[in-house]
Amino acid sequence: MLELLNEHGCFGGRLCFYQHDSHAIGLPMRFSIYLPPQAASGDWNCPALFYLAGLTCTEETFMIKAGAQRVAAELGMILIAPDTSPRGANIAGETNSWDFGVGAGFYLDATQEPWSRHYKMHSYLLELRELVLAEFPADASRVGIFGHSMGGHGALVTALRRPDLFRSVSAFAPIANPTHCPWGKKAFEGYLGANQTEWRAYDATELISGMRAPFPEGILIDQGLADKFLGEQLHPEAFEEACRAAGQPLELRRHQGYDHGYFFISSFIEDHLRFHAKRLR
Amino acid sequence: MLELLNEHGCFGGRLCFYQHDSHAIGLPMRFSIYLPPQAASGDWNCPALFYLAGLTCTEETFMIKAGAQRVAAELGMILIAPDTSPRGANIAGETNSWDFGVGAGFYLDATQEPWSRHYKMHSYLLELRELVLAEFPADASRVGIFGHSMGGHGALVTALRRPDLFRSVSAFAPIANPTHCPWGKKAFEGYLGANQTEWRAYDATELISGMRAPFPEGILIDQGLADKFLGEQLHPEAFEEACRAAGQPLELRRHQGYDHGYFFISSFIEDHLRFHAKRLR
Repeated sequence: MLELLNEHGCFGGRLCFYQHDSHAIGLPMRFSIYLPPQAASGDWNCPALFYLAGLTCTEETFMIKAGAQRVAAELGMILIAPDTSPRGANIAGETNSWDFGVGAGFYLDATQEPWSRHYKMHSYLLELRELVLAEFPADASRVGIFGHSMGGHGALVTALRRPDLFRSVSAFAPIANPTHCPWGKKAFEGYLGANQTEWRAYDATELISGMRAPFPEGILIDQGLADKFLGEQLHPEAFEEACRAAGQPLELRRHQGYDHGYFFISSFIEDHLRFHAKRLR
Repeated sequence: MLELLNEHGCFGGRLCFYQHDSHAIGLPMRFSIYLPPQAASGDWNCPALFYLAGLTCTEETFMIKAGAQRVAAELGMILIAPDTSPRGANIAGETNSWDFGVGAGFYLDATQEPWSRHYKMHSYLLELRELVLAEFPADASRVGIFGHSMGGHGALVTALRRPDLFRSVSAFAPIANPTHCPWGKKAFEGYLGANQTEWRAYDATELISGMRAPFPEGILIDQGLADKFLGEQLHPEAFEEACRAAGQPLELRRHQGYDHGYFFISSFIEDHLRFHAKRLR
């Protein structure tokens, strides 16, 4: 059951924060949803765009900082932002690290104890997609996904695993090859275990290497060149090379002077919404 | 001396956070400044717009939540957001209330001990204006001011006291008649003492009652009708009536379904920047 926590008028539409009992997670989960004026007026054909946030973020971050609602109101696009991990699992050490555990679910289904009981964020995203389609005026054939950093990784992986469910995908500064960076290694070893062949199912660069142009209309990635995590953690060049080999069109834009934060994201958010709107027509 | 704390690329310009030793306050103060591309490229004729935030906010709030930089980049307008009070005065009880003391300076010069030593926010705004004009490519003849709630009060009062220094003024949900609301009474009694004749100098409704159309090109106020503070704290109708009596053109827009927060502000921020840009041509 959906519990409305609070709602706000925003650019002629409604921004709502909900809590619900998640079957996949086994705990209450929160998400935010922006309903543009077109959704409020009963148009049951709005495209819907999921945004996955990065490490330490919550379901609030994107709606507060990215400035996307203005463009979504113009385009008649529903925006949905889930939380970044289960909360309240009460696993020992779950809040010890900012890059593992609470706020750092990495959008995967954990297989290792004690995480495997609740940390099922990949399944949760599919559950949330169904919930949104059932409860809000969103068109099941026009759903896209994007995200930032850990959430950019999540968006790419989710779309590459389920291109039947997500028809468009883009990312800001994604962790594009987590198997080969410290954030990814720590998370994958903790959630998926030491066997690195299991990691490939959640690594965008590995996934696309086995495919043939799953998104023929292209993928968009924006990357700031003043991003302090670029060299060690993100590896967009690995994903770029894998896309080339897979025949996957990719626009990877590198921006001088932009860092890893939301002032970067907000500067290019409009381009991403228009990118998705064009592909979700 | 200005100390640059950090900076971020944002809509083709630079968003910078500074600290400096304030003469008026007698303590270090922080502010944020957005320099649009036109400022970075050496145009020393940019208009400048000061934003005063509300209770509990800091110099970060506006730049993170309001979504103003996009429009400022288009208009070539510098944005400046000071902090909402002195910090580190170490006055007993200064953090006991969210509506008095730290985060609640009310943009006035306190006259009552122990606040009168550091809580000189009105003088600080004038000092900061001078600092910005000296250090950044802002045009002294084209400076405006706006703000939200306590900061809407601050913007109206500052502009009405010094129309020679601030040529345009607008507000979101301002505390428009603080002498007659609980927030204002608490703050004015604490900072200015029990003699209510002293309060008039910091009450926008009282100030404009003694004037004749100080802003002939008009004042803009946006107010949400779902704002939970509207009935008890804000009293825009009192300011509206005083403007009418003073021959002061006022556009007071009442918006169904909008509350007191930044989702409201961001929905109408573009109108405010264009309002100021037109008057600061």
